[in-house]
Amino acid sequence: MTRAYNFGAGPAVMPEAVIEEAKANLLDYQGTGLGVMEMSHRGKPYMEIQEQAGARIRKLLGADDAWELLWLTGGASTQFAMVPMNLGAKPADYVVTGTWSEKALAEANKLGEGRAAGSSQATNFDRIPKQLELSAGASFVHITSNNTIYGTQFREAPVVDAPLVCDASSDILSRPLDMARYGLIYAGAQKNLGPAGVTLVLIRKELLERSPKTLPTMLNYQTHAKKDSAYNTPPTFPIYMVGLVAKWIEAQGGLAAMERRNAAQAEKLYACIDAHDLYLGHAQPADRSHMNVVFNLAEPEREGAFLAQAAERRLLGLKGHRSVGGIRASIYNAMPDAGVDALVAFMNEFAAS
Amino acid sequence: MTRAYNFGAGPAVMPEAVIEEAKANLLDYQGTGLGVMEMSHRGKPYMEIQEQAGARIRKLLGADDAWELLWLTGGASTQFAMVPMNLGAKPADYVVTGTWSEKALAEANKLGEGRAAGSSQATNFDRIPKQLELSAGASFVHITSNNTIYGTQFREAPVVDAPLVCDASSDILSRPLDMARYGLIYAGAQKNLGPAGVTLVLIRKELLERSPKTLPTMLNYQTHAKKDSAYNTPPTFPIYMVGLVAKWIEAQGGLAAMERRNAAQAEKLYACIDAHDLYLGHAQPADRSHMNVVFNLAEPEREGAFLAQAAERRLLGLKGHRSVGGIRASIYNAMPDAGVDALVAFMNEFAAS
Repeated sequence: MTRAYNFGAGPAVMPEAVIEEAKANLLDYQGTGLGVMEMSHRGKPYMEIQEQAGARIRKLLGADDAWELLWLTGGASTQFAMVPMNLGAKPADYVVTGTWSEKALAEANKLGEGRAAGSSQATNFDRIPKQLELSAGASFVHITSNNTIYGTQFREAPVVDAPLVCDASSDILSRPLDMARYGLIYAGAQKNLGPAGVTLVLIRKELLERSPKTLPTMLNYQTHAKKDSAYNTPPTFPIYMVGLVAKWIEAQGGLAAMERRNAAQAEKLYACIDAHDLYLGHAQPADRSHMNVVFNLAEPEREGAFLAQAAERRLLGLKGHRSVGGIRASIYNAMPDAGVDALVAFMNEFAAS
Repeated sequence: MTRAYNFGAGPAVMPEAVIEEAKANLLDYQGTGLGVMEMSHRGKPYMEIQEQAGARIRKLLGADDAWELLWLTGGASTQFAMVPMNLGAKPADYVVTGTWSEKALAEANKLGEGRAAGSSQATNFDRIPKQLELSAGASFVHITSNNTIYGTQFREAPVVDAPLVCDASSDILSRPLDMARYGLIYAGAQKNLGPAGVTLVLIRKELLERSPKTLPTMLNYQTHAKKDSAYNTPPTFPIYMVGLVAKWIEAQGGLAAMERRNAAQAEKLYACIDAHDLYLGHAQPADRSHMNVVFNLAEPEREGAFLAQAAERRLLGLKGHRSVGGIRASIYNAMPDAGVDALVAFMNEFAAS
C-alpha cells in the first residue's frame, strides 16, 4: 500500500521523513539499546530530547528568555480551564470565532467572568470580528487564531492592552508570529506539532506570578515551570515526535518558508473554489484560513460522490464538520504540495463531470 | 547495537514484540495509508483501536459493565486531584506507604480533608501498614498498591467499607485483582501498560454520580464517561500502544500467568539478596514488591562500581531513588526472564569479587 493524502482536521498528517526517523529509532534510540518510549524521563538521553525539542521551538518562534515553555497534557480543552484558573478572569475577554472559542469562554464562566468581546456567530462564523469591545482591566484577551471547523484565521494578532492569550492549536508553527503581541500561547500538538498527547504552552514569565497557590498542583503553571516540565512523567514519546517535527521545519527553511508554502497551497485551493460555481467557500475571502479550506457544494446531493471519488484516489479525511457540512481540506504544514495538486486536479475534474 | 535490559522504574521496558508491531505499522496502519499517529480520533480505524484496547483491559481485569473505563492524561499526579474533586473528601482516608501516597494525601488536603489512616513513614516506608484507623463516613479510602521507591506492595487490597481507590500505576496488569474490593483504580501507563502519556481510570458507574457539575469540564469524570473518552482528542498513539501491550499479555496467558512470572522473577532476585551479606533488602519480606526490588549495599562505597559494571553488561536503570539510595531493579511485566537471570548472575559475581 502507498501512503494516502490525509486532509483530516487532526490528528493530522505528519511528515513522512519524521515518521521514518522515529521508526528507525523505535527499538534502539541512537545505540542506547532502548526505544524513546522506554527511557526514564530523568535520564540524560531523554532529557536531551526534551531540551532540544523546546530549544528548536523557541528558536523557530523567537521565544526568548522572557518566555517559559511548558510541555503539558490534556489538550487545548484543559487549557480552557487552566488559563482562567492561573491568570484570573475578573473579567476576561474572548473573541468568539467558533466552537472552540465558545468552549473556552464557557470554561472561563465556570471559573470567573468571561465576556464575548466580539463574535461572528450571527453569520455562522464565516469571518473574524474586527471591532472588539474590550473590558477595562480585563485579566486577558483570548483568541483562537485559526478555526478548524469554519476555515477562518486571524491574518495577524490584534493589538490589545491586556495580555493576549492565543489558542494556536491548529496553526502553530505555520507562520512567524510577532511574539511581542502575546502573553500566552497554547496548542494541542495533533495538527502542526506532532501526535496527540502533548500540549505546548508558552507563557511570559511575569504572568506565572499570577497563579494562586491554592490551585491543584498539576493545574498550576508554576509547578511545571519550576521543574522544567518534569514534575511528573511527561508524555515522552509525543514530545520526541514534536522535536523531530521542529527539526523538519528548520530543514524546510523555518516559519517564513512554511508560511509561503502554506499560503501557496491555500491559494491553489481557493482559486479552484472561486473558479467553479459548484464550490462555495464558507469563509469571507479576507479571513480565509491557510490551514483548513472549508467549502460546500452548490449541489449538496453530490457530496457523497465527491467524498467517495476522492477516497478512491487516496484523498482522505475531506468530510466537513457537521456545523458547516460540505468539504474541509486541512492542509497543515506536513501536507505535501503533491497532495494539494492531486486534490485540485480532482476538484476540477469533478466540477466538469 | 543490541537491546539492553532496562531495569528503570519508568518509563519502563516494553515487550519487544509490541514495539516491532508498532514499527511495522508506523507509516501505514493495516493498509489505510496513514500511521496511527495521523488518524482522526473520530474515524473508524482509530475508534476500533481504542475500543479494542479498552475491551482487552476489561477482559484481563474482569471489569464488567458496572465499571466505566476512561482514557485520560496527566498521569497519576492529576488523579491525585481529580479523585477528591469528583468523589469528595469529607473526609477521605489515605494509607501512606511512600512518596506517592504522601503527594496524593497532600492534594486531598488542598481540596477537602485527607487523613492518614496508617503510615510506615517512621520506618522509611519499609512495610505496608496493616492496622488502619478508618474514618466513619469517609468519602473513600486510598491506597498505592505498589511503591516504586521503597519496593513494597500490598499483597492484596484491604477490605474497607468506603469505596477503595487505588493508585495502581506501577503494578496494574501484573496480577489478577479482586475487582469487588475496588471503587476506582487509576494508573499512569508508563510502567506496565505502555508509553507515558495516557492514564487509565476504571471507576464504578455509581461513583460517577458524585461529580459536582461545577468542576472544570476536563476534570469531571462524567465528561469523559459520556463521550467514550473522546470529548477531546485522546492521546491516540499511547492508547494504541496500551492495546498492543494488552494483546501481548493475553498471549502470555493473562494476568494469572503474569503474576506467576513476576513472582518467580522477584523470588530469584530476593533469594540472591538474602544469600549475600553484601545486599540488604529495604522492604520487610512480607511486603516485598514483585515490581521493584530495592536494596542497599552493605559497602555503600561499592555502589558506583556495581552500577558501572552492570551497565557494561547492558543492565541499565539500576540506580535507586535518592530517598533510599542503593539499587533498584524494576521488573515490570515486560522484563524478560533472561534479563533477571543476567542480573542475578552479575550480582553473584559482584558479591564474590
